[in-house]
Amino acid sequence: MKYMFTLLLLFSFLVNNAQTNSDEVILKQFYSTSLLDGKSYNWLDHLSNRIGSRLTGSIGAEMAVEYTKKELEALGLDRVWLQPVLVKKWVRGAKEVAYIKSDINTNLPLCALGGSGPTPPSGIIAQVVEVHSIEELNALDDAVVKGKIVFFNRPMQADLIQTFEAYGGCVDQRVHGAEAAAKKGAVGVFVRSMNLRLDDYPHTGTVSYGDLPLNKHIPAAAISTNAAEILSSIIALTPEQEVYFKQSCSYKGEVQSYNVIGEITGSEKPEEIMVVGGHLDSWDLGDGSHDDGAGCVQSMEVLRLFKKLEYKPKHTIRVVLFMNEENGLDGGLKYAKDAEAKNEKHLFALESDAGGFTPRGFAFDCNDEQLEIIQSWRELFKPYLIHYFEKGGSGADIGPLKAVGVILAGLRPDSQRYFDYHHAENDTFDAINKRELELGAATMASLMYLIDANF
Amino acid sequence: MKYMFTLLLLFSFLVNNAQTNSDEVILKQFYSTSLLDGKSYNWLDHLSNRIGSRLTGSIGAEMAVEYTKKELEALGLDRVWLQPVLVKKWVRGAKEVAYIKSDINTNLPLCALGGSGPTPPSGIIAQVVEVHSIEELNALDDAVVKGKIVFFNRPMQADLIQTFEAYGGCVDQRVHGAEAAAKKGAVGVFVRSMNLRLDDYPHTGTVSYGDLPLNKHIPAAAISTNAAEILSSIIALTPEQEVYFKQSCSYKGEVQSYNVIGEITGSEKPEEIMVVGGHLDSWDLGDGSHDDGAGCVQSMEVLRLFKKLEYKPKHTIRVVLFMNEENGLDGGLKYAKDAEAKNEKHLFALESDAGGFTPRGFAFDCNDEQLEIIQSWRELFKPYLIHYFEKGGSGADIGPLKAVGVILAGLRPDSQRYFDYHHAENDTFDAINKRELELGAATMASLMYLIDANF
Repeated sequence: MKYMFTLLLLFSFLVNNAQTNSDEVILKQFYSTSLLDGKSYNWLDHLSNRIGSRLTGSIGAEMAVEYTKKELEALGLDRVWLQPVLVKKWVRGAKEVAYIKSDINTNLPLCALGGSGPTPPSGIIAQVVEVHSIEELNALDDAVVKGKIVFFNRPMQADLIQTFEAYGGCVDQRVHGAEAAAKKGAVGVFVRSMNLRLDDYPHTGTVSYGDLPLNKHIPAAAISTNAAEILSSIIALTPEQEVYFKQSCSYKGEVQSYNVIGEITGSEKPEEIMVVGGHLDSWDLGDGSHDDGAGCVQSMEVLRLFKKLEYKPKHTIRVVLFMNEENGLDGGLKYAKDAEAKNEKHLFALESDAGGFTPRGFAFDCNDEQLEIIQSWRELFKPYLIHYFEKGGSGADIGPLKAVGVILAGLRPDSQRYFDYHHAENDTFDAINKRELELGAATMASLMYLIDANF
Repeated sequence: MKYMFTLLLLFSFLVNNAQTNSDEVILKQFYSTSLLDGKSYNWLDHLSNRIGSRLTGSIGAEMAVEYTKKELEALGLDRVWLQPVLVKKWVRGAKEVAYIKSDINTNLPLCALGGSGPTPPSGIIAQVVEVHSIEELNALDDAVVKGKIVFFNRPMQADLIQTFEAYGGCVDQRVHGAEAAAKKGAVGVFVRSMNLRLDDYPHTGTVSYGDLPLNKHIPAAAISTNAAEILSSIIALTPEQEVYFKQSCSYKGEVQSYNVIGEITGSEKPEEIMVVGGHLDSWDLGDGSHDDGAGCVQSMEVLRLFKKLEYKPKHTIRVVLFMNEENGLDGGLKYAKDAEAKNEKHLFALESDAGGFTPRGFAFDCNDEQLEIIQSWRELFKPYLIHYFEKGGSGADIGPLKAVGVILAGLRPDSQRYFDYHHAENDTFDAINKRELELGAATMASLMYLIDANF
């Protein structure tokens, strides 16, 4: 009996060892192929430099749908299709203008927030009230705010190591500041850009007016961090100083767009689906290379690597390029709704939407038991300097799948530079490093492979 | 007795816990102070933008000595001084020129290697022999090489995750290629730049002629990776194609320079020294922001953080800004020689000379027992995403201390972008991210603190 037990142990060791060895080999192949013979960088070059920005509802967004569909078809996947999504279309209009009224040479670099309404065609001239939180605003007398521009100027907290935490601690000003200011009679809102650097780029992003009627929406804009510092100094010295600003953005209603989807059918459990994706739309200021062109091409690369290495997944592996993450999440909501309607079973979903920087690991939205299995793969990832496997947020587009019990994960690249570019004019292809992008794709493919093999 | 033992255990737990808590608090202070109130970025701005390149023996190098000495003095250290070092002075002269002879519009971006001699004033016109290693060159008949330019074109291996390994696997062509080519009768050497990207920047670096007499030295230059690809294609099509190149660099003999040193005297073991440093000299093409302005200002910041937080180290903590790492290691050799002559006892030395990118951890040159103690601090570093604590190379300047049994360490920042800039014209201040630089300084301060407290 004891002898038998020893034999069993030995057998189990050999099987486990063979498994691990083959895992090691496959991960190495993913990384080498992505770095030596990858397509993610070329795809992103096309998306960023030939197509450019992909604001939902724009021609760029539709060109990106066509282009990525064609490229996925060329990979020889089992199925590629477009999933219709009705999306909200908002346009920026003419370039915004803002300056200190007494000194038109003091330009305040500014951009309308996504979803904001315009100023009157002649612009707005008003005094500015600086606050650092919605609470601080709400504590002010309405009389102090009425007829003025409310200026939210709480900076991102620089000593938080993970910059997304600093973003999370600040972004309420941008999303909900205008609603609060409108309720107190303000005529406009400026928000300090969500940027950890001092520079001249305004960073856009969505604004919500809650349930305020359309005629109560006030124009809302982001100003650059340098402009925020200057404006704050000026109004500290001269509170009665007026500021001029003008923007021409408008909401154009719903238009037809698409999620782009491709899949490799599972060899053993074709009815169980694993999703990998990013969002195809971007803001209009740069070309959306980091947010989220990178995530799209990395997700496409995952399926390309599976095909290229002739690895046949047990589960169905599906790439989804979601439309309109930025301005309403229409694509993510539609995908989850259709999946539910069709009674599709999703096992896992991974999103890359935190920039194309050096990958550090993943955040998981799953239970403890699942996390323990995933963390047992640490050693496999060690040669690639992938070390972060913790619970945390995954991605906005795959979030709606949470309701049906799917394991969710988000790629976690190095986050230090991300908010230098996020939603700004400088989120362009030159801010992408080829190797970093390719390492991210290989890291995602490795996780997809291990989940496929072990779940 | 059993009761006594339990009490002892409890006491030990409380002491250990207090220790760990205080470690946690101190690390948090280092990181917060570096990120919220650091000086490293301003210092580097001055070094890079007001002084510029700091080629050994140049006015820039001497200005940097004066500037950093003055800044260290302003920190209120216990002692700041200059350590005289005789350094080799080499100058580039006029900008180099190279082109395909039949088509002077096909410019080949090229730069002389440090220590190379000039071409004749009228330049060199010769055919090119492409090889991929010194072995391949040595296997050729001398007749094939004689009178020609040898072109070393082995690229860095892109699927190595740690880019310094790819550098290590390639740099023999640059360092020893000219000696081998000269011995076979070549008239010049081109080396493909040590760069993982395809671009137009030539990357310089040292060349050695071994014990060849001066009159046998042949001019050696690096060409950009794009130029290497073009040249390789052209000579594959037309082997007899001639190339023109001209460079005017020369060796100017030895001149006086200095290591810049400052220290905080240890409160308990002042005679035991812990060094933190980088090298103050740079190549002349860019402004040496990553190589190694970053390492210098991070090392200065370590001592500033100790002073600012009023932490009194047990051992003497010494910052050393070494002169002439790039072109002879004169400063590092002198420092070690003087330390030996004075019978100074060094416990530990840490160098930052791998760029100012997001820190990932450290490589250690120490014994297993020491490494185990260091690795026990993993959890303390986890909130800062510092995860790499492995054996490996430390830094060139502190290397000579190895002989006297010092524990050596090198900061390991993310290495993916490093060779985009290394020794090239684009190693400039705009390639530095403030947060990444500051995180590196805090990580170094944290390690210095933990070594001081535990060794």
